[in-house]
Amino acid sequence: MPNQPISGNDLARFSGPQTFMRLPEAATAEGLDVGFLGIPMDIGTSWRSGTRMGPKQLREQSAMIRPYNIQTGAAPFDALQCADLGDVPINTFSLSDTISIITKTYAAHLKHDFIPMTLGGDHTLTLPVLRAVAAKHGALALVHVDAHADVNDEMFGERETHGTVFRRAYEEGIITPDKVFQIGLRGTGYTADDFNEAAGWGFNQYLAPSLWHKSLTPLAAEIKEKIGDQPCYITYDIDSLDPAYAPGTGTPEIGGLTTPQAMELIRGLRGLNIVGCDLVEVSPPYDPSGNTALTGANLMFEMLSILPGVPYR
Amino acid sequence: MPNQPISGNDLARFSGPQTFMRLPEAATAEGLDVGFLGIPMDIGTSWRSGTRMGPKQLREQSAMIRPYNIQTGAAPFDALQCADLGDVPINTFSLSDTISIITKTYAAHLKHDFIPMTLGGDHTLTLPVLRAVAAKHGALALVHVDAHADVNDEMFGERETHGTVFRRAYEEGIITPDKVFQIGLRGTGYTADDFNEAAGWGFNQYLAPSLWHKSLTPLAAEIKEKIGDQPCYITYDIDSLDPAYAPGTGTPEIGGLTTPQAMELIRGLRGLNIVGCDLVEVSPPYDPSGNTALTGANLMFEMLSILPGVPYR
Amino acid sequence: MPNQPISGNDLARFSGPQTFMRLPEAATAEGLDVGFLGIPMDIGTSWRSGTRMGPKQLREQSAMIRPYNIQTGAAPFDALQCADLGDVPINTFSLSDTISIITKTYAAHLKHDFIPMTLGGDHTLTLPVLRAVAAKHGALALVHVDAHADVNDEMFGERETHGTVFRRAYEEGIITPDKVFQIGLRGTGYTADDFNEAAGWGFNQYLAPSLWHKSLTPLAAEIKEKIGDQPCYITYDIDSLDPAYAPGTGTPEIGGLTTPQAMELIRGLRGLNIVGCDLVEVSPPYDPSGNTALTGANLMFEMLSILPGVPYR
Amino acid sequence: MPNQPISGNDLARFSGPQTFMRLPEAATAEGLDVGFLGIPMDIGTSWRSGTRMGPKQLREQSAMIRPYNIQTGAAPFDALQCADLGDVPINTFSLSDTISIITKTYAAHLKHDFIPMTLGGDHTLTLPVLRAVAAKHGALALVHVDAHADVNDEMFGERETHGTVFRRAYEEGIITPDKVFQIGLRGTGYTADDFNEAAGWGFNQYLAPSLWHKSLTPLAAEIKEKIGDQPCYITYDIDSLDPAYAPGTGTPEIGGLTTPQAMELIRGLRGLNIVGCDLVEVSPPYDPSGNTALTGANLMFEMLSILPGVPYR
Amino acid sequence: MPNQPISGNDLARFSGPQTFMRLPEAATAEGLDVGFLGIPMDIGTSWRSGTRMGPKQLREQSAMIRPYNIQTGAAPFDALQCADLGDVPINTFSLSDTISIITKTYAAHLKHDFIPMTLGGDHTLTLPVLRAVAAKHGALALVHVDAHADVNDEMFGERETHGTVFRRAYEEGIITPDKVFQIGLRGTGYTADDFNEAAGWGFNQYLAPSLWHKSLTPLAAEIKEKIGDQPCYITYDIDSLDPAYAPGTGTPEIGGLTTPQAMELIRGLRGLNIVGCDLVEVSPPYDPSGNTALTGANLMFEMLSILPGVPYR
Amino acid sequence: MPNQPISGNDLARFSGPQTFMRLPEAATAEGLDVGFLGIPMDIGTSWRSGTRMGPKQLREQSAMIRPYNIQTGAAPFDALQCADLGDVPINTFSLSDTISIITKTYAAHLKHDFIPMTLGGDHTLTLPVLRAVAAKHGALALVHVDAHADVNDEMFGERETHGTVFRRAYEEGIITPDKVFQIGLRGTGYTADDFNEAAGWGFNQYLAPSLWHKSLTPLAAEIKEKIGDQPCYITYDIDSLDPAYAPGTGTPEIGGLTTPQAMELIRGLRGLNIVGCDLVEVSPPYDPSGNTALTGANLMFEMLSILPGVPYR
Repeated sequence: MPNQPISGNDLARFSGPQTFMRLPEAATAEGLDVGFLGIPMDIGTSWRSGTRMGPKQLREQSAMIRPYNIQTGAAPFDALQCADLGDVPINTFSLSDTISIITKTYAAHLKHDFIPMTLGGDHTLTLPVLRAVAAKHGALALVHVDAHADVNDEMFGERETHGTVFRRAYEEGIITPDKVFQIGLRGTGYTADDFNEAAGWGFNQYLAPSLWHKSLTPLAAEIKEKIGDQPCYITYDIDSLDPAYAPGTGTPEIGGLTTPQAMELIRGLRGLNIVGCDLVEVSPPYDPSGNTALTGANLMFEMLSILPGVPYR
Repeated sequence: MPNQPISGNDLARFSGPQTFMRLPEAATAEGLDVGFLGIPMDIGTSWRSGTRMGPKQLREQSAMIRPYNIQTGAAPFDALQCADLGDVPINTFSLSDTISIITKTYAAHLKHDFIPMTLGGDHTLTLPVLRAVAAKHGALALVHVDAHADVNDEMFGERETHGTVFRRAYEEGIITPDKVFQIGLRGTGYTADDFNEAAGWGFNQYLAPSLWHKSLTPLAAEIKEKIGDQPCYITYDIDSLDPAYAPGTGTPEIGGLTTPQAMELIRGLRGLNIVGCDLVEVSPPYDPSGNTALTGANLMFEMLSILPGVPYR
Repeated sequence: MPNQPISGNDLARFSGPQTFMRLPEAATAEGLDVGFLGIPMDIGTSWRSGTRMGPKQLREQSAMIRPYNIQTGAAPFDALQCADLGDVPINTFSLSDTISIITKTYAAHLKHDFIPMTLGGDHTLTLPVLRAVAAKHGALALVHVDAHADVNDEMFGERETHGTVFRRAYEEGIITPDKVFQIGLRGTGYTADDFNEAAGWGFNQYLAPSLWHKSLTPLAAEIKEKIGDQPCYITYDIDSLDPAYAPGTGTPEIGGLTTPQAMELIRGLRGLNIVGCDLVEVSPPYDPSGNTALTGANLMFEMLSILPGVPYR
Repeated sequence: MPNQPISGNDLARFSGPQTFMRLPEAATAEGLDVGFLGIPMDIGTSWRSGTRMGPKQLREQSAMIRPYNIQTGAAPFDALQCADLGDVPINTFSLSDTISIITKTYAAHLKHDFIPMTLGGDHTLTLPVLRAVAAKHGALALVHVDAHADVNDEMFGERETHGTVFRRAYEEGIITPDKVFQIGLRGTGYTADDFNEAAGWGFNQYLAPSLWHKSLTPLAAEIKEKIGDQPCYITYDIDSLDPAYAPGTGTPEIGGLTTPQAMELIRGLRGLNIVGCDLVEVSPPYDPSGNTALTGANLMFEMLSILPGVPYR
Repeated sequence: MPNQPISGNDLARFSGPQTFMRLPEAATAEGLDVGFLGIPMDIGTSWRSGTRMGPKQLREQSAMIRPYNIQTGAAPFDALQCADLGDVPINTFSLSDTISIITKTYAAHLKHDFIPMTLGGDHTLTLPVLRAVAAKHGALALVHVDAHADVNDEMFGERETHGTVFRRAYEEGIITPDKVFQIGLRGTGYTADDFNEAAGWGFNQYLAPSLWHKSLTPLAAEIKEKIGDQPCYITYDIDSLDPAYAPGTGTPEIGGLTTPQAMELIRGLRGLNIVGCDLVEVSPPYDPSGNTALTGANLMFEMLSILPGVPYR
Repeated sequence: MPNQPISGNDLARFSGPQTFMRLPEAATAEGLDVGFLGIPMDIGTSWRSGTRMGPKQLREQSAMIRPYNIQTGAAPFDALQCADLGDVPINTFSLSDTISIITKTYAAHLKHDFIPMTLGGDHTLTLPVLRAVAAKHGALALVHVDAHADVNDEMFGERETHGTVFRRAYEEGIITPDKVFQIGLRGTGYTADDFNEAAGWGFNQYLAPSLWHKSLTPLAAEIKEKIGDQPCYITYDIDSLDPAYAPGTGTPEIGGLTTPQAMELIRGLRGLNIVGCDLVEVSPPYDPSGNTALTGANLMFEMLSILPGVPYR
């Protein structure tokens, strides 16, 4: 049987190792189907910092998740070999060095066939991860749930920050523009081009107001239809949620998604050929109850539950 | 005229006694229609503790509630004699002793005809309360609003904890299985049987995803129809609400109910033959603003507003 | 070109002056189309205090707002000359003196033709502001978004507090009763007359339960139709929102509006002849993450976005 | 035997009534030696508010205090009849009205011979309390522990605020100037006269820097010697303590007293003819752990322990 | 070379495993000189709970400690083989069962020769740990730093709680009474016997007031002299510190030790034949900054630094 | 008369501009004696982040400081022309770029003769500031109050971070080694050389344990004597204080200075030829009460009070 999370019936939930869902650690991805990696960085953020503590708190709160997705029937640990691969050894004093360390680390891990699930950390990390994943799988379809499009050209003269990720990815050809889906966009901006330009590249954008008061199940079906079987990456920025649901994040924007919508969306994507996922921008210092990390950890589990090969019972 | 809460026009709300809604205290239930009791315990919790401070903070926040339910017209204090019966003298060092103290205390109070409304405390308390209430009224219909079914057989070898309450109640015959309604269930589990088994006993279960984006008024009507005039107990676990609405609780689960749904549900149950209610699992240390307790106190007032004999004007 | 907020691309958002949206300060309203004023008071509150810190935190959190309303196309700073007029020099030891200072200060500013947008502070401030605004524009239509009707006759013998504002305004003839729209009312009360009496004066009241699960776009259209081109004032009490969305306020009431509803409502009012707005009752000490102020600042920006003369692109 | 606090061995400390030390309530001072009164006000504060919640939290935290002062041997409840007289019904919308209500309330209570111990609330309250106490006992000696001298002539034109208390008391002749001892003064000011003028009246002032690193036992002896047997009032502002020891207060000043110094000072005053005490300026919203109120409640108990008639064993 | 903590120069401090000081984990004590064990319990507490989260946060904050004690020259990791043995699998629903699990777990580990250093958890845990340690080493000398003597006979009829530990240990003969040193005692009590009785057994008690304003270096020397080479256990309750230094604990008492005093005391005990240590009563929910756990982790490191065999350089 | 802070008697303290002490802003240092500059950065930190919010909160809390240092008689605003020069426009995505921006900005300002007083931000900023100040004044004497010596050679391969500042300054000859005074050093390390090597360069180091329980007035006299009239820079890291006094910082170390000691030290340095000062490492997200920033702002005022030319009255 594959690795199992430590059961809350065997060891009290406030106890035990601080790995994702209290899974075993692994030094390499060899033999794994899924590996959880932390990238504890916040030096790519532009407003509140604190996401460097994100992986730590996501793991802490994940201790409450049980192995079976009782709402959908997914039983990921019945079939997938999962482990926690620890943290990427970033250089907290240099954003550019950190970006390069991330790509190298992921490239090395990806010599093995497994799906990396990343615990952030600020959204900058998605760029180097995508580089490594695309190097293995080719250009990727992308489901990008976020309050922000992150398609700036530069910020303070820097071309690689948490606000420029998907322009760089587009330019580098590592994502397929008309198979990019940006969901939950909102907030304020500088010009209509903040979003329009990316739409011109082929990005499919769903602004939050068009989603208010609605189930996202139909949207998920539409996305799944359009992506087909192309290798797909899901990047989930916790600030896609309304601040009521995820207060602990760096650049909150009002009028966002609810957690039911987030769960409908992810559950509806089951069947995609997912090759990687991340959950980013949880900032513990702005979340005294720990519930934002709890929410992030649960969304991570929802993504795990739709990976190829997960049995349902 | 019956006891009245101290009016915010007579004494500033941040002032006065810390009883529920600043009602008078009473030493016994003699002459009461409704008695509020605190059970300040958390030793039955499995993840975060802190609910021992729940009764204290529920009472503190209840100071903001005015006596008339302006949204529904309910005027409970026009007709019902209400008082605060203080706290049950639990033994904080022994869960089993505490359970037995609770039953004895309630049994003693229930020599008088009144409706006990309990401020928790962790959900374990509902078992001994049900025992005392059923001893008086016979097997009970049950409206159980919660993220969790609480039907485990045991936890760490213990048969009476906050996760086993309703299996024990079922086994003991103090609830009528096909008149048990579990609303808001979600989270993760171990097997499909976590919920299915109880469904097999006759429990009616409403998972949260089936309730998303909907008014709960129709559900309330359906429940009321099925229960008819059987004596009914309502147990309200604050974690039935989404953590956005009730962050201060011990085992929060994302994707829960909203407060409008909670209010629709309770209001829709008016007409049931309610013989007891509780509001459990408020954990103040995880709720710096105090709003979870405020929410709990308001839901308590909504339950008060639908008790038999409450006039509407 | 009119004044522009400092761009987050020119100066990091956690930096720069603490004016609303990092706009320039102005000593007088001369030459302005819009002036932001703080009224840092809480001595008119009846439960939790702390709103005296509201203007400070609204300005701090407004640093994250960019100048273009990308969701609606509004570009207020393309056409309107905006500045921060600082705080009204209230007397924090005397509510009555403070009320009189506010009216005088606004009257002096209103010798210039501009729209005052007020950052509160407790809701008492709306009365003296309305007095000054009505002195200039005549009786006003009023859009009042709030959990409470604020139509008490007196509180502790005082006739001017945060709970009596709109009765006084009605008595003084500075608002047109049948063009008063109170949206989001809820909570508990003393008698049905708490709301009914004002309805009898002609006030249009929309209780929260009638708005649950719905878009507020139709309501906004209805209000706009009824008000026509009469000079209109919008007073937005942050406690109209559910405490999940706005925990940091003095008298929270469960079952309130969502931020999507708030945004629909404001956006739907575009076209009204707005002559003043305020955003009140943000209480920072009850909001460790700062997100309530962030929400308030964004709603202020939404109101700015619908002022007469704002271009859309 | 006199009233006893509920023992933590009889009822768990997080349980029971929220009176000071869980003593019985009393409606009048008849038959009492000591009465605890709350004055829940903050409208006299000039910086952070929140002290209106002070009496509530002082009582909550006092639940941890046991009846015997094991460090000194004082057993106040062996001899003194003590009860909680509840809160003064202040008018939270009017500082001047509140001041007059306080004097009247205390005057009425003081028809009985008892010592009032007041739980604040902001420091303004000491003026009306002194008026009532002096009306009974004549001009008072005063031990005033505080970071601030509170001898301003006016603030914003108001003559009675938390910063003018002791000038007014001096002018009114209700304190004996050369028997006034101000201990812990520090912070910043406007001119040397901020302190000097009061020194000129005869006030004895002890600036904090002169007390650093020292036991205050000798100072207490000196004060006791000078006061002799004149009726004496102790007013203890929690901000006399360093913010490290009392973070939850409205106008904290660095470089203050330590709690050992506070305890030495109070213990050293045993033998004075104390006729009243207060503990003011605890502001719960700025104190998430509750420890400032805990400290305040303990200092209250230390003052209780030195009242005339307290036996030592 | 023995196990080394992960260096902050190799992996950012907010990263890596959550073991004590980021040491390797070990499944057994075989080959270890020192093993860190967590006991995540709070069901033995009588006021605030939350210490079940203590081991988790002590480990988290320990990531900041570097391996060399630069103030004293101690280099424990040069010579001692240290590892983290994880958490004891307590039964969170039963205090008595938990106590028995702890003794069994320690007894099993102590088949190997190593020094257990325990991360609490509430103080109840020291009793079962002492039982196991004394079973190996015989009656122990005890250095007990605490605000409370913990020598009650029972609490709510229970004989084994966090307030009865050292009476039980005395009765069982597992500590040598005249080699017991209780340091920092204070707070309030019920009778003089609360402390006196234990003094009568031979316990050496140092009340906090006798230690104020003083270096504890002389006290440490005196204790060391008296204990000589008898096997010695150190139990460090974080509430021995003043709440200013350790706000996050369950039963804080004002007038406590400072961290310099704590460090002087521990450092002065170097040379004792220490066979076990614990650090208990850190309650994270009452400590938003995490600094109480940081302090606890550092005191743990100070105790590690004085173990037999630690080289100084 | 020079610029004056807005008086709390003219405008309530929670009101007005958010400049340091509510002084006027200035665009350049022309005509100034003292200029306050913010450097809102945290990308040079190695553990907790959040200091990017430091300048904002230091300014906010400084509103409570009055213009006259009543404890010492210093009246800086009688003679010195002071203003707030706003924030340095750092590049939050690049530490190296930020360092270079700081030097350039200070060099530009220092074409005018004024004393820069810097509000941090993480300690990295002191290096580029020292470069600019030394370019004007030559090699500097340095009073460095800190828990850490900050003399690492590199961190993660980076040579310019918050842990390497004073090694770089030494290597570059911009400080005079035997006129460097490092006060309050403590914490843990890697080898004795962590401190020793710098001592070998001539640095004078005062470890915290050598300062416990003592007045720092004699130390200040000694330092002043040794420095003489050489241009001197004071860099004050808030983590020099014990975490009890300054909880909101990124790398707290127990056993630190008290605020009385900090004030004694600064006051004792009056007479030095001070040419610049900074106050760094205040991290607001870890300080819910705001008191760490309050402490930092007050220490800044103490440094202002000893600048050359400040009159005493």
